[in-house]
Amino acid sequence: MSLLVIGTLAYDSVETVQDCREGLLGGSAVHFGMAAANFGPVGLVGVVGADFRKEDLRFLEGRGVDTEGVERLEGRTFRWSGRYEADWNTRHTLETQLNVLERFDPKIPPSQRGARFVFLANASPQAQLKALRQCGKRVFSLADTMNYWIENTREGLSEVLREVDGVVLNDEEARLLTGETNLIRAAHRVRALGPRYVILKKGEHGAFLIGQDVQYALPAYPVQEVVDPTGAGDSFAGGFMGYVASADSTEPRTLRRAMLYGTATASFCVQGFGVEGLGPHGRGAIESRFNELLDITTV
Amino acid sequence: MSLLVIGTLAYDSVETVQDCREGLLGGSAVHFGMAAANFGPVGLVGVVGADFRKEDLRFLEGRGVDTEGVERLEGRTFRWSGRYEADWNTRHTLETQLNVLERFDPKIPPSQRGARFVFLANASPQAQLKALRQCGKRVFSLADTMNYWIENTREGLSEVLREVDGVVLNDEEARLLTGETNLIRAAHRVRALGPRYVILKKGEHGAFLIGQDVQYALPAYPVQEVVDPTGAGDSFAGGFMGYVASADSTEPRTLRRAMLYGTATASFCVQGFGVEGLGPHGRGAIESRFNELLDITTV
Repeated sequence: MSLLVIGTLAYDSVETVQDCREGLLGGSAVHFGMAAANFGPVGLVGVVGADFRKEDLRFLEGRGVDTEGVERLEGRTFRWSGRYEADWNTRHTLETQLNVLERFDPKIPPSQRGARFVFLANASPQAQLKALRQCGKRVFSLADTMNYWIENTREGLSEVLREVDGVVLNDEEARLLTGETNLIRAAHRVRALGPRYVILKKGEHGAFLIGQDVQYALPAYPVQEVVDPTGAGDSFAGGFMGYVASADSTEPRTLRRAMLYGTATASFCVQGFGVEGLGPHGRGAIESRFNELLDITTV
Repeated sequence: MSLLVIGTLAYDSVETVQDCREGLLGGSAVHFGMAAANFGPVGLVGVVGADFRKEDLRFLEGRGVDTEGVERLEGRTFRWSGRYEADWNTRHTLETQLNVLERFDPKIPPSQRGARFVFLANASPQAQLKALRQCGKRVFSLADTMNYWIENTREGLSEVLREVDGVVLNDEEARLLTGETNLIRAAHRVRALGPRYVILKKGEHGAFLIGQDVQYALPAYPVQEVVDPTGAGDSFAGGFMGYVASADSTEPRTLRRAMLYGTATASFCVQGFGVEGLGPHGRGAIESRFNELLDITTV
């Protein structure tokens, strides 16, 4: 197993202007895992409650996501519900039930501790650090985070940032973390906190990779029918890390191509509820959007 | 004269979080002209009041902007004042004094009526049409507009859209014009109104060109110190049309490169108040940012 993700498994409820769905399989590690599995095997470490459906685990396994590292605890699975405005950019969290996530204590199966590529999906910095320190041989680690951890556990987050190779942030998080309104300056300030690479996610406006040896920006894939943007960021990270792990390289050229693969993968995510959009397409469809994106962004 | 711009000359007052300036030389045609002049000669058609400073006309002439088509009327020059929030995306118009602009009746000098490339900067659709119909030999015309004309003179604007080859819109304008929240769908809807090419300007998020034979998206140049974004859109259009006119081509490859030149040119505009940023750099500096942008956007 060369790629590992540590993060959440969840049941999500999503309201959009057109439709609503309840009890959708979701969570950061699930979106990441489903996206990354298009490029090769991926191990998932997380926690679920007694109510987590066995068929959902089988579904993930069927897609190439190894769930040996998913721990089942007494209690209910983490639940999130939210509502999107018509412009998709405004998201209201209606309810968050942490449930078993409050007791998340990541334990990486011995067979997966040698993973060369590790993604720390959004979780408490404490859990992220605990997971990271179990992965001895990693060559590239990428972390996500969110406003809550930036505001409430700054010290733990700083420790994460000192240990990882890269971090993915949306524009709001980058500004909150650094106090810089200019995104480019914010990205450089984040790099000064530790990570060699910063990926800024800007939703429908694309993404920006900034590192010492690389600067690469690209627009989002021009999706005409958005159904549900939940998990787009994790799907982007899944496509990015999935490709990097499959190439077994962190050369600038690989990272640039990985940005395109992440963007192509995320574009499928937003076209269905939950992980539906990530399911049926497969690598061929991703390659096709990769080539479209290349065409759209090449002079 | 192969390139012509019809639009406003103004004195602007600008407040930012850091600083404020009064009586700055500005206006859509001035920003466009200064930007385009980096690529070759450009004729400017517009109207000023008796108070317009002679040295400002000389300044434009010195930069390669032909002001033969600038008419001087009794009364005061068009004035605009505005204030930017710290994020630069929120702009408050504090005052608009149309003054002589209310009597703008564009008269294109006979020597400039054969212009092959024409930019209709933001003005009333009536004035835009009147100008366009004086340009017989044009091979490519591009129009800008604004919310006010979309809301109040829809019929005149539709006529403009049926006659021009391309239109530049920001995201808000594209949504207002079409009622579509999805920008890509909005762009296709705008094309259905007439223009073969639609350029979506997204400020700090870059720009998108959509036509039958081309789709090209690129991010903004990563400017770290914004001073005043006034005129950035017109400077983008100036760089775009200046390059297209200098290449004397509207091939897809030329239009893609023109998007990069427009972006590079606009990045200088925002680094100074009014047209200060557009002044001292010249073509060499633009080429250098063109190459940087190529590097940032190429896999």
